[in-house]
Amino acid sequence: MSESFEQMWSALAAIGKDPETGGYSRGGWTPAERESTAWFADQCTTRGLELESDGLGNLVAWWAPASASASERGVVTGSHLDSVLDGGAFDGPLGVVSALAAVDRLRKAGFQPSVPIGVAAFVEEEGSRFGMPCLGSRVAVGALDAAKALALEDRSGVSLRAALESSGTDPSRVGPSPLVDRMSTFVELHVEQGRGLVEDGAAVGVASSIWPHGRFRFTFTGEANHAGTTLMSDRHDPMLTYAMTALAANKQARLAGARATFGRLSVEPNGTNAIPSQVVAWLDARAPDDAKLQSLLQAITRQAIERAERDGTAVEVVAESVSPIVDFQPGLRDRLVDVLGGVPVLPTGAGHDAGIFSAAGIPTAMLFVRNPTGVSHSPAENAELDDCLQGVEALATVLEDLTR
Amino acid sequence: MSESFEQMWSALAAIGKDPETGGYSRGGWTPAERESTAWFADQCTTRGLELESDGLGNLVAWWAPASASASERGVVTGSHLDSVLDGGAFDGPLGVVSALAAVDRLRKAGFQPSVPIGVAAFVEEEGSRFGMPCLGSRVAVGALDAAKALALEDRSGVSLRAALESSGTDPSRVGPSPLVDRMSTFVELHVEQGRGLVEDGAAVGVASSIWPHGRFRFTFTGEANHAGTTLMSDRHDPMLTYAMTALAANKQARLAGARATFGRLSVEPNGTNAIPSQVVAWLDARAPDDAKLQSLLQAITRQAIERAERDGTAVEVVAESVSPIVDFQPGLRDRLVDVLGGVPVLPTGAGHDAGIFSAAGIPTAMLFVRNPTGVSHSPAENAELDDCLQGVEALATVLEDLTR
Repeated sequence: MSESFEQMWSALAAIGKDPETGGYSRGGWTPAERESTAWFADQCTTRGLELESDGLGNLVAWWAPASASASERGVVTGSHLDSVLDGGAFDGPLGVVSALAAVDRLRKAGFQPSVPIGVAAFVEEEGSRFGMPCLGSRVAVGALDAAKALALEDRSGVSLRAALESSGTDPSRVGPSPLVDRMSTFVELHVEQGRGLVEDGAAVGVASSIWPHGRFRFTFTGEANHAGTTLMSDRHDPMLTYAMTALAANKQARLAGARATFGRLSVEPNGTNAIPSQVVAWLDARAPDDAKLQSLLQAITRQAIERAERDGTAVEVVAESVSPIVDFQPGLRDRLVDVLGGVPVLPTGAGHDAGIFSAAGIPTAMLFVRNPTGVSHSPAENAELDDCLQGVEALATVLEDLTR
Repeated sequence: MSESFEQMWSALAAIGKDPETGGYSRGGWTPAERESTAWFADQCTTRGLELESDGLGNLVAWWAPASASASERGVVTGSHLDSVLDGGAFDGPLGVVSALAAVDRLRKAGFQPSVPIGVAAFVEEEGSRFGMPCLGSRVAVGALDAAKALALEDRSGVSLRAALESSGTDPSRVGPSPLVDRMSTFVELHVEQGRGLVEDGAAVGVASSIWPHGRFRFTFTGEANHAGTTLMSDRHDPMLTYAMTALAANKQARLAGARATFGRLSVEPNGTNAIPSQVVAWLDARAPDDAKLQSLLQAITRQAIERAERDGTAVEVVAESVSPIVDFQPGLRDRLVDVLGGVPVLPTGAGHDAGIFSAAGIPTAMLFVRNPTGVSHSPAENAELDDCLQGVEALATVLEDLTR
């Protein structure tokens, strides 16, 4: 007999939990992430699902009708097992565990799908190790070239190529994935990362769109000097230019009804008694549409340049990744809403593998499960068990409808 | 025959130079710093000087008259061999190499001191590894307790105790130093860290005072959350509180004719798509007198707290070290100025071991050598060879005067 949702959840939640913060740091190809992936593979084989892996390590486990051919296309559901640094338990894993639990539920009810149902876990969705969000799905659909992906480096200078080799994976197999060729439809269940469903008083909702999202690297360059002896008027301090830019980003995002965050910094030489020579800061920016994202970036960059002139510093802005808006297929979205009896429809500011598959032309939908505080990417991220079980039921209902 | 100033300078300048930046990162008990120290010990023994070490590794090499007893007090000159992160070649080493060269010069001229002359190198003056400036001299004079010193940790969590053990030093011997008991007078030659001597048109000057100096650790605490989905109005982002505080520190220092710098930061979790949970920032603050330093800190802290209330964050300020103003002994200072024929007298915003010895009641003086750009704590730090040689001559003249 398969483990219940609660049993699976307890087992997975124990892997890589920081005893101090209660958070998870499951970057791609780290021990905690590998252990989570091994746990998933074990759950799939225990259920007799046919586990397929692609060159990068994305996994789909198939429950296929006896009549299905070996490569027959089907409906895939799942999410990811990696996390941000010190993130919560739900972002990613909830979609994977719910997918397994939904399959269990359908089998127990004696349901026989007419096409295969796949349960998926995609690698490095958060980009917390190699700086590229949705790495697994981007490579899988061919939106990110294998050579570029393999050259990505983590903060310690370890390349993706080297990380794969260390984990016993042959980098020459990385590239567009045969798993994608078998996906007729993709449905991702995810914990909500805001309080939309709290306000609507609903346990489950359906996604309308994903906001466009950009990661921009701001490099502020000045001149290192002695913190005690250098006159304030003689300084070229890039920390000041950065500080003003961080405040400007916050203000511009408020004005535009958008989001802007500087959450990651690197300071050189980072000594208490030295004026920095350089501050590198990463801007995470999101807006309701592509034009608003562009004008948000322009407004922030303009203020950074103005302040740099005043500080005698220089600023350079590089777009590390820009994802345009994703409008999920309206027909599929409406079908989910109908079969679930009229649940709320809401947009999200968070990126997801579902956005990558949708942009690649695969009919894609998302289900959200209520988050009582809205907090995410933090150990405080949470969802009530009862809401999670309603999410499993909703996902099972959707899968049954799509494969009956 | 002893090496010339230029030969010594070339040999020492080659140790630990970063091939990319041209700078030095000689933190205490790192390989580059240990190699520099070994070079110094070798120079001393080659000259037949009697090398003494204390429990922490501060070194004094004595040139004693034949008549002197083994513990006779004398005039000590020297500086330090450690550096800030990616610092210049001159800050510290110039005083050590000039001390050796001045002794060579006096011996060559047939001078016989009536009391011992000691050439010194003190450890971890910059505090770049263990966060405590003038670590060696503070422990030597008993201003810093051995237990507190041994418990200091570097950024990797390695304690001073562990660093000493790794380098083969017995931590139980750390404490007030017998070397200090033999110092009747201390003279430190140092590259100037400003452009005072450039403006005065002089190669060499004498110090009047060292500004009071504080290192304050600001801990800004907020709430980690998702950078894409969290409404701007729902955030508790400590990065904003920090950014405003960094700008406030700059403004307040300008208004007060003081110095304030945030050059070192640590961000948690430091991920691109997470609002930080915590930003720790170190303020380096200096002012012309103790009251002005105190009111500078108060003004910055007040603005930080005001902004924290607005951001829904918390701020905590801890003084890691505060050094009061050092006024060098006027009699000794005037004697140096006279014997050098009326050189300029100027204050400095930089801390030095000389300040620790002066505060401990040892008659102490400093000589400065012109710095054409004023830049220090940076690979661009510089002094002309001719000015350095004039510094050696001035130091020899002073030593001769004090020990004739």
